[in-house]
Amino acid sequence: MPQISERSHNMPESPIRKLAPLAQQARDRGIKIYHLNIGQPDLPTPKEAIEAIRHLDRRVLEYSPSQGFRSYREKLVDFYAKYNIHVEADDIIITSGGSEAVLFAFMSTLNPGDEILITEPFYANYLAFAISCGAVIRTISTTIDEGFCLPKVEKFEEMISERTRAIMICNPNNPTGYLYTRREMNQIRDLVKSHDLYLISDEVYRDFIYTSSPYISAFHLEGISQNVILIDSVSKRYSECGLRVGALVTKNESVRRSVMKFCQARLSPPLIGQLAGEASLSAGDDYMQDVYEEYLQRRKFLIDRINRIPGVYTPIPMGAFYTVAQLPVDDSEKFCAWCLTDFNYEGETVMLAPASGFYMTPGMGRDQVRIAYVLNCEDLARAIHVLERALEAYPGRTI
Amino acid sequence: MPQISERSHNMPESPIRKLAPLAQQARDRGIKIYHLNIGQPDLPTPKEAIEAIRHLDRRVLEYSPSQGFRSYREKLVDFYAKYNIHVEADDIIITSGGSEAVLFAFMSTLNPGDEILITEPFYANYLAFAISCGAVIRTISTTIDEGFCLPKVEKFEEMISERTRAIMICNPNNPTGYLYTRREMNQIRDLVKSHDLYLISDEVYRDFIYTSSPYISAFHLEGISQNVILIDSVSKRYSECGLRVGALVTKNESVRRSVMKFCQARLSPPLIGQLAGEASLSAGDDYMQDVYEEYLQRRKFLIDRINRIPGVYTPIPMGAFYTVAQLPVDDSEKFCAWCLTDFNYEGETVMLAPASGFYMTPGMGRDQVRIAYVLNCEDLARAIHVLERALEAYPGRTI
Repeated sequence: MPQISERSHNMPESPIRKLAPLAQQARDRGIKIYHLNIGQPDLPTPKEAIEAIRHLDRRVLEYSPSQGFRSYREKLVDFYAKYNIHVEADDIIITSGGSEAVLFAFMSTLNPGDEILITEPFYANYLAFAISCGAVIRTISTTIDEGFCLPKVEKFEEMISERTRAIMICNPNNPTGYLYTRREMNQIRDLVKSHDLYLISDEVYRDFIYTSSPYISAFHLEGISQNVILIDSVSKRYSECGLRVGALVTKNESVRRSVMKFCQARLSPPLIGQLAGEASLSAGDDYMQDVYEEYLQRRKFLIDRINRIPGVYTPIPMGAFYTVAQLPVDDSEKFCAWCLTDFNYEGETVMLAPASGFYMTPGMGRDQVRIAYVLNCEDLARAIHVLERALEAYPGRTI
Repeated sequence: MPQISERSHNMPESPIRKLAPLAQQARDRGIKIYHLNIGQPDLPTPKEAIEAIRHLDRRVLEYSPSQGFRSYREKLVDFYAKYNIHVEADDIIITSGGSEAVLFAFMSTLNPGDEILITEPFYANYLAFAISCGAVIRTISTTIDEGFCLPKVEKFEEMISERTRAIMICNPNNPTGYLYTRREMNQIRDLVKSHDLYLISDEVYRDFIYTSSPYISAFHLEGISQNVILIDSVSKRYSECGLRVGALVTKNESVRRSVMKFCQARLSPPLIGQLAGEASLSAGDDYMQDVYEEYLQRRKFLIDRINRIPGVYTPIPMGAFYTVAQLPVDDSEKFCAWCLTDFNYEGETVMLAPASGFYMTPGMGRDQVRIAYVLNCEDLARAIHVLERALEAYPGRTI
């Protein structure tokens, strides 16, 4: 039998997926699971999107342009302008989800062996896309004690080699919910500029920022407009994860021309998804306001409650809908599995994402989990209650 | 400014896309273009698919499983069984178009520097996916004089090296319309078996076979079930190119496990596309029969007419909806461009795909074009008439 590729062996298994069979077994035993582990919003998709789909008026579902519909890209120009991101329709390439935008950004800029700097913990799938390109992710650790803020510039300088091609950030951050300050963003800009790196900036959680701190997009940074590649997606903003519609935005024409070669090879992004994505831009301000306020309320509720559990600590996330929490456990992978295999409280349990999967440095995040607040407050209250009981009962409890 | 990747430089520009700006200029001058250059069916999508989309009954457009909906995969099992392809739902992985299935097949099986054998002319985007993986496509030429039949087994043996990992076929073939005979398929099987290669078989045109010759799927070949990776798509079968729904089917569990890592990294295939793809399987036999008969009629019409143009020759394609034709021109790239820039007949012209883009061997296909019959017979008649006038007027005519 022929062999599979080396890159397949190197591909990480999603930290969340590893637990999926255990969750299925728990469900099969009749146990109700509160899912704090996934980034799938529970909030409704804008009715404008649903209606656009339901009023589909086409006889042939044909290819759309490889770059995405021009009408959609033109409306995105106005959308981004609200965030003081000034781009043209030609700067925008519509992709099959933010995932494809990351893959094509890497494919276009990184040679095998090239390095990307990312702070850890980081969204684990970046690693899969880097491996797909033969590129190497090098991480700079952030810590829960410092609230996951950006490490000192010296830490970056130490890691930059002649193979370093890009710095990648996710802002607001998945998994930590951290929002980079203006000072931190300027620090990143200076690094990008002085070492002539790409800055690949995943800003899919832009709409979920809960503090009065200003949102600093990579596009707001002066003097590096040719270096910036922005990753975007409708998935989180509009509860449209299933549509698979994202975008890659850059003012760098060489990068765009390269990305377009990969886009043309895969022919086109999803047609129906684009129609729905475009319609979503017409959703009233009340839609985004309702969604925002719901997350704001959940965040306050979750953070307040969870920090009251003895031995548990999480910094206050400033954006997105995740937080990384430290638990009084020997090993969060074991704890998360145990919650599914050996525990239930009144027939219920919780599913969490072990944070170790978001770190590259061995041993880091071992007592941490990522918690997503994609449940309503009532369910969150119950989930936290069940989590507290689980921590009391867990044999590997450390304090 | 940082550099783009070497693979970007190596990525081919689509042979069809190169002409796109010239076509736009022609349209801007008010010239009507008959598109014989694209593989976008003009026939209607099944009403079952359109209705499934229009009756969308979901509030949240959430992620679907990375492998695709189980209900859809189960129905595909029955669909394949009609073609005597016997697989289980777990053998099927739903992808974002056949394109992603090819990319993930390559990513899972080919190391950088590994070689895939393909007969040329071949679907140009395979090259883009190979380059994405750092793999190398090695071609074995087929010729129009021999009707693009499979070259002798010795030709393959000569090309097989220790780096050869896979043979890739497209059957029925894009761009030639060739259908491999049982004898040829057995020859491929023997090569695959004796050298322990993967056989990656793109069978997206399976439903369009116009001769009484039996359709031999890679899955019909004995003794290589662990080597076969089948590529499929709803795009051509149901006029659903825009949905971006394909499939990778293999009985090789190691390959599936590897492909699933890439699938999990990109989270899920398109949700709405899957709903429509699943509904399409309920389309009545009359739908496929109507589509089939329409293509059958067009094929006869096109081939009859085109072979009557002095100096033009095309073999009779046995499947798909393309044919490669030899034209009495110095250079088909120049001719195809000239048709858009310097020619019109009563305000009309034709757009064709120069065949050189489907060959790797320099100089091959230089007097050939690919013609797609995705126009109704009335338009085809007019298009062929315009083509004949263009060949008469073209300054680089050779005979």
